[in-house]
Amino acid sequence: MMTLNPLYLDDIIKTALLEDIHYCDVTTDYLIPENQQSDARFTAKAEGVVCGTEAAVRVFQLLDSSVKYEILKKDGEPVQKGEVILTLSGMTRALLKGERTALNLIQHMSGIATMANRYTKIVEGTNATIADTRKTLPGLRPLQKYAVMAGGARNHRYNLSDAAMLKDNHIDAAGGITKAITALRQKVGHMTKIEVETRNLDELQEALAAGADIIMLDNMSPALMKEAVAITAGRALLEASGGITDETLREVAESGVDIISIGALTHSVKAFDISMYIS
Amino acid sequence: MMTLNPLYLDDIIKTALLEDIHYCDVTTDYLIPENQQSDARFTAKAEGVVCGTEAAVRVFQLLDSSVKYEILKKDGEPVQKGEVILTLSGMTRALLKGERTALNLIQHMSGIATMANRYTKIVEGTNATIADTRKTLPGLRPLQKYAVMAGGARNHRYNLSDAAMLKDNHIDAAGGITKAITALRQKVGHMTKIEVETRNLDELQEALAAGADIIMLDNMSPALMKEAVAITAGRALLEASGGITDETLREVAESGVDIISIGALTHSVKAFDISMYIS
Amino acid sequence: MMTLNPLYLDDIIKTALLEDIHYCDVTTDYLIPENQQSDARFTAKAEGVVCGTEAAVRVFQLLDSSVKYEILKKDGEPVQKGEVILTLSGMTRALLKGERTALNLIQHMSGIATMANRYTKIVEGTNATIADTRKTLPGLRPLQKYAVMAGGARNHRYNLSDAAMLKDNHIDAAGGITKAITALRQKVGHMTKIEVETRNLDELQEALAAGADIIMLDNMSPALMKEAVAITAGRALLEASGGITDETLREVAESGVDIISIGALTHSVKAFDISMYIS
Amino acid sequence: MMTLNPLYLDDIIKTALLEDIHYCDVTTDYLIPENQQSDARFTAKAEGVVCGTEAAVRVFQLLDSSVKYEILKKDGEPVQKGEVILTLSGMTRALLKGERTALNLIQHMSGIATMANRYTKIVEGTNATIADTRKTLPGLRPLQKYAVMAGGARNHRYNLSDAAMLKDNHIDAAGGITKAITALRQKVGHMTKIEVETRNLDELQEALAAGADIIMLDNMSPALMKEAVAITAGRALLEASGGITDETLREVAESGVDIISIGALTHSVKAFDISMYIS
Amino acid sequence: MMTLNPLYLDDIIKTALLEDIHYCDVTTDYLIPENQQSDARFTAKAEGVVCGTEAAVRVFQLLDSSVKYEILKKDGEPVQKGEVILTLSGMTRALLKGERTALNLIQHMSGIATMANRYTKIVEGTNATIADTRKTLPGLRPLQKYAVMAGGARNHRYNLSDAAMLKDNHIDAAGGITKAITALRQKVGHMTKIEVETRNLDELQEALAAGADIIMLDNMSPALMKEAVAITAGRALLEASGGITDETLREVAESGVDIISIGALTHSVKAFDISMYIS
Amino acid sequence: MMTLNPLYLDDIIKTALLEDIHYCDVTTDYLIPENQQSDARFTAKAEGVVCGTEAAVRVFQLLDSSVKYEILKKDGEPVQKGEVILTLSGMTRALLKGERTALNLIQHMSGIATMANRYTKIVEGTNATIADTRKTLPGLRPLQKYAVMAGGARNHRYNLSDAAMLKDNHIDAAGGITKAITALRQKVGHMTKIEVETRNLDELQEALAAGADIIMLDNMSPALMKEAVAITAGRALLEASGGITDETLREVAESGVDIISIGALTHSVKAFDISMYIS
Repeated sequence: MMTLNPLYLDDIIKTALLEDIHYCDVTTDYLIPENQQSDARFTAKAEGVVCGTEAAVRVFQLLDSSVKYEILKKDGEPVQKGEVILTLSGMTRALLKGERTALNLIQHMSGIATMANRYTKIVEGTNATIADTRKTLPGLRPLQKYAVMAGGARNHRYNLSDAAMLKDNHIDAAGGITKAITALRQKVGHMTKIEVETRNLDELQEALAAGADIIMLDNMSPALMKEAVAITAGRALLEASGGITDETLREVAESGVDIISIGALTHSVKAFDISMYIS
Repeated sequence: MMTLNPLYLDDIIKTALLEDIHYCDVTTDYLIPENQQSDARFTAKAEGVVCGTEAAVRVFQLLDSSVKYEILKKDGEPVQKGEVILTLSGMTRALLKGERTALNLIQHMSGIATMANRYTKIVEGTNATIADTRKTLPGLRPLQKYAVMAGGARNHRYNLSDAAMLKDNHIDAAGGITKAITALRQKVGHMTKIEVETRNLDELQEALAAGADIIMLDNMSPALMKEAVAITAGRALLEASGGITDETLREVAESGVDIISIGALTHSVKAFDISMYIS
Repeated sequence: MMTLNPLYLDDIIKTALLEDIHYCDVTTDYLIPENQQSDARFTAKAEGVVCGTEAAVRVFQLLDSSVKYEILKKDGEPVQKGEVILTLSGMTRALLKGERTALNLIQHMSGIATMANRYTKIVEGTNATIADTRKTLPGLRPLQKYAVMAGGARNHRYNLSDAAMLKDNHIDAAGGITKAITALRQKVGHMTKIEVETRNLDELQEALAAGADIIMLDNMSPALMKEAVAITAGRALLEASGGITDETLREVAESGVDIISIGALTHSVKAFDISMYIS
Repeated sequence: MMTLNPLYLDDIIKTALLEDIHYCDVTTDYLIPENQQSDARFTAKAEGVVCGTEAAVRVFQLLDSSVKYEILKKDGEPVQKGEVILTLSGMTRALLKGERTALNLIQHMSGIATMANRYTKIVEGTNATIADTRKTLPGLRPLQKYAVMAGGARNHRYNLSDAAMLKDNHIDAAGGITKAITALRQKVGHMTKIEVETRNLDELQEALAAGADIIMLDNMSPALMKEAVAITAGRALLEASGGITDETLREVAESGVDIISIGALTHSVKAFDISMYIS
Repeated sequence: MMTLNPLYLDDIIKTALLEDIHYCDVTTDYLIPENQQSDARFTAKAEGVVCGTEAAVRVFQLLDSSVKYEILKKDGEPVQKGEVILTLSGMTRALLKGERTALNLIQHMSGIATMANRYTKIVEGTNATIADTRKTLPGLRPLQKYAVMAGGARNHRYNLSDAAMLKDNHIDAAGGITKAITALRQKVGHMTKIEVETRNLDELQEALAAGADIIMLDNMSPALMKEAVAITAGRALLEASGGITDETLREVAESGVDIISIGALTHSVKAFDISMYIS
Repeated sequence: MMTLNPLYLDDIIKTALLEDIHYCDVTTDYLIPENQQSDARFTAKAEGVVCGTEAAVRVFQLLDSSVKYEILKKDGEPVQKGEVILTLSGMTRALLKGERTALNLIQHMSGIATMANRYTKIVEGTNATIADTRKTLPGLRPLQKYAVMAGGARNHRYNLSDAAMLKDNHIDAAGGITKAITALRQKVGHMTKIEVETRNLDELQEALAAGADIIMLDNMSPALMKEAVAITAGRALLEASGGITDETLREVAESGVDIISIGALTHSVKAFDISMYIS
């Protein structure tokens, strides 16, 4: 697994802890003795793919630098209901104060990894890979894209700076697909790929001729996609996007497209159920 | 509707815009003329409750201080598929650069408000109100709690500082429910309410006798909750929590409990579909 | 004692150290050898209650992670003139650079704890407890409220989000005390208490009837407060506020009110004299 | 009056508003109509020197950019009990939400200006000017030093980078006053002044001979200070510091010293009483 | 020209203004009347390409929101010695306080644009374009890369996330160029290009066969580069890097490579001389 | 050497690492095994003065808290081409991710120290010392001024708050040099020095008479400076500034001035070439 930039991770966790604890924990601070120690374990309540273990541990480290831990299921590993994901040992106050924040992180990230993994399995054996989008939740993009990857899917561009994507408005302003790609190619750096949104085979043909690196097939039927794959014949990568459901995903994948991008991976996440037990 | 602290809102939007735009938008900056103006409208693609209009507008104001706008559906209002929520007029570059961030915000917040509204309608006519929890996404708690309220549900405590909630570990450390409540009452300020988690009627009886303000009925059956309501007889507020589904929600509400708290309102949000059209 | 959120504490200390040291300490950096080690001790120059020891130690840890320390008087403990509060051992440069910031913190916090303790002792044996207010210094509320508690007094609400307080303007806008409380109760969460400011017994009666949780007796005479206590008969908590001096505090407390809130605890703090000796 | 760096001021006010409002103002947001407008005025409740008017106004501007205001008493001006300091007109919600933060700022700053002005008047007619110290409250140094100046006193160094102050530990490490000053002069920039703490006339003589710019007379009696003034004969500035009370201040000033620095100006501030009335 | 993310720009300018002004400007605040107005103009002292005009104007806007300005030479435009670049009109205090920060920005950015432009002209008529590197100054990358583009050169990747560059250590860890590219291609998203560093024609051949998007010719002679161009025959982009001087640049460009990346563009910048005159 | 405020340093390094790594390092994270360890060494590629070793090490510590290191050439020490400056041992991923940021810092800082040292040597044996200016790069002033000092030169004022510098506009507003100095002396604190810019001997005479601490000789010829030195006769420090080149520097120094300030030390830095080798 990749190592997420620790400075990024710390910033997000600090924000979350200030949000959840604020000044103190009136219940814990007034009732739990200052030096009491406890053990804790995170246990899966369902079957899925774990993600966010390093983040969860980091929550407790920021509250109690002496906390001990063991990660039994690493980010990206499958887990069964009832299996222990990680164990902790440290100050009871810190365990109680960090519990909610750690769970909020690991449940969200595991929810994404589990969904990404499910989609990845659906398209197994085809040419297609599953990709995320920029439809992420404010402030959480790095965590969400990391979780997508932990689930076995791939990352689309990170932001508007690092790759180009031509939509209607861009194409209209430039006077057509060909002119837009040509103009852009003279400006962007050599490390920047250019993707073009197309809605029919004519646009696809023009984008291919103009040298697009990736061509998005926007809301096309699987049948039309199959035609697009045939026409393209490997001259560009093809990305299917829009209106793809659990039911149609396999059919879309079998059309031969290279990438299927799914916004729900990050904009409509179902938390993966994990409990923390303190003893 | 309440006015969310604008300093909070601006911080979150700035984070989101830096995340999504980063330095520039290579596609837009290289193809759209600097002074081109456009109009835009946000349109609902489904039926639901709108939330996040002020946030969406603020995204564009931070990129183009001269942008004009009109909000046609205010936060908390119902919307039908195809209805226009808000319109904008400003620099095309700013509209294109802010589009994704604004949509990410308004779709997430409207998703929460729509879910909160649906649950609120299910319990209509009973004594129960729907409440959120601390199961929020890192950094987004203010926005999420605001959206819960826009949907017609209520907010539980904001953080660990502003109200007390006694769980197993607190009760064990204090030597029982009675001792815990007594000890806590001597420490917390007079504006702080105390809630106690209970798993059976004995614990409920003890919590009532010890003067808890709110008593959580943790994972109890509707039948047991009904007994709890009868025993309590208004001496404390009763909060149902745990394992409540769409199917069981009405039955739980009819048990007579005062509050039903639902984590999914904020931890498992389905984005509400809204499109932005630029012309 | 409670454990103040360490992320909060670190932010405040970092701000203070950047403010006081800025880039370097020209005197210390040019004259003290880089590896010189020294011992230091913090000594009380008067009798009072200590607060801010953890904060003072943290100042030095942020400048020299290898610093050793021993806290001899914990936050909330009484101290006599001449007694040693804490001792340190570390890099001389770090000790000299952190000295002023550490003293500024511990003197201010001990000043608050000492004042809070004095007031608490004055009301000893009555029904009243001393509480702080929102009249805190910008950016220092967490530290100040923590120090109030270390001195034996209690915390009022933390901010405008976590409890409701009805003043003239709110009551006028709602059309009277009864309407205001009723309207508010239908909106605020179940963990939120409602307090009402009253200036006479008629308003008190209305607030009681409308179900206020706490009623503030604003600038009333002790005699009038006694009447208010009799009328209330435990149906709500009564908070005395306004114009209370050292001379009148005991009399106010003997009226039978539950809480006496004093703004001076945080807005007019006299630093508690502590010296740091380096050897 | 000087113009405090607006970026500094905004940062402090944002911190204060986030601290006091947090997400929302449950009382105001649920009871005051969104578009209600009100007027407000700040009125002095005692005699003193005003400071913090720009800061107070800025509080409301950050909550409501359309707020109108008039400042009737500028920073540094004397004010009588009952006089109006400033008036505002804007959204009622913003006025109510900003009230406490604005008052906390203006009361603290006016408290400092009033104290600084009182001390300045006590020494009037002598050679001495009153100066502040680094004994400021964490995060508030710029505001506090600005208020000292508004009251007619002067600012000591801002931080450890911008001027040198030799204390025992520095002198010991360098091997005496002469060696310390000589070593330092070869390192510090030409814009940096060097001050030396002395406890007796021998040390004074050595510091003079070594070319100190300023010499602090630490805890000396007024009689000894008079001798010091005679010996110095203008070759350096003399700063009296330590143990100076309201009673002894005039006598110290009459000794002929140039500067009298008083920590209480910033570490033990009594808030100046100002009320805000909304109508 | 592109529109740099204004939130990024503001953050950098705020940092710079807090650094340069700190609390106040003792000279200006004590001598210039609060309401005095002045005009100012920025004039080139040499021939070059302007960059940073928006940044310079923004400096003054942040200090005085009412400042008026006119930009006569836009970012990317050539300028002759003595020509006026922009004019300002506003509060004298703000003009004096912002002067140094605005000049520091515009001189640095124009220095980069001028150098980028000079290199671009040297390679005119060849196949090569000039590119920057990640050898930027901490915190200034966005400004520096923007200036490179204003000068007519291109941007290399922004950071380690948005494109892949295989160096020795990566290749060794993977077991060779082919294995490294293959392994990477299965992980990175479809918008991510892969570049490989090569030191000889064997490595070039292997990289080409393995499907590298870009191949860096590291410290090769122009003669060897010419061979590399012939071998590659358009199958990948070729980037020349390392040891290129003003003297060798044209020869390198004539070898037929596609990109010549030059670290000095951002790591060894000579400020472009611009003066600000206030009247 | 001085110890730069570690909180300042950490902030700058965090900014740089977030800028350069962003979320992850796609090349390194996908190809280098998570637990692989490596050694690294920083080697000088030219002769000069080293600066930034602590900063470089800190880069790696922030990415891998277990990294081991040895600094062989401390900040301020001379180094020959080929000499090892520091060695590191730690996680390969962290070494690769921190490489560019560490090099960017140490090359820039060593470039400054080397230039400062060269100028210092040119004036050796004269009365003059070399000083920097406020012509620094945004956000980097602390690092740049530290490097100037490491090279053996001195620091001018840090910012506009800590010393006064009278320019044309100030003098005109005050009604002449004498009035300006007099007015300022009555306002600024006793730790604040006053410098005056002069363009001829008349202005010099007036500034001397008015008691300026330092007098800047702006763009004067060495001959005129010699006269100024004779006239001044030690009554103030004299600072030469403007139009000084490598060729004229020695002659300027021999005129007898005290300080020669050179903006190029920080605004036109040539990176000092250092390589990092990983094995």
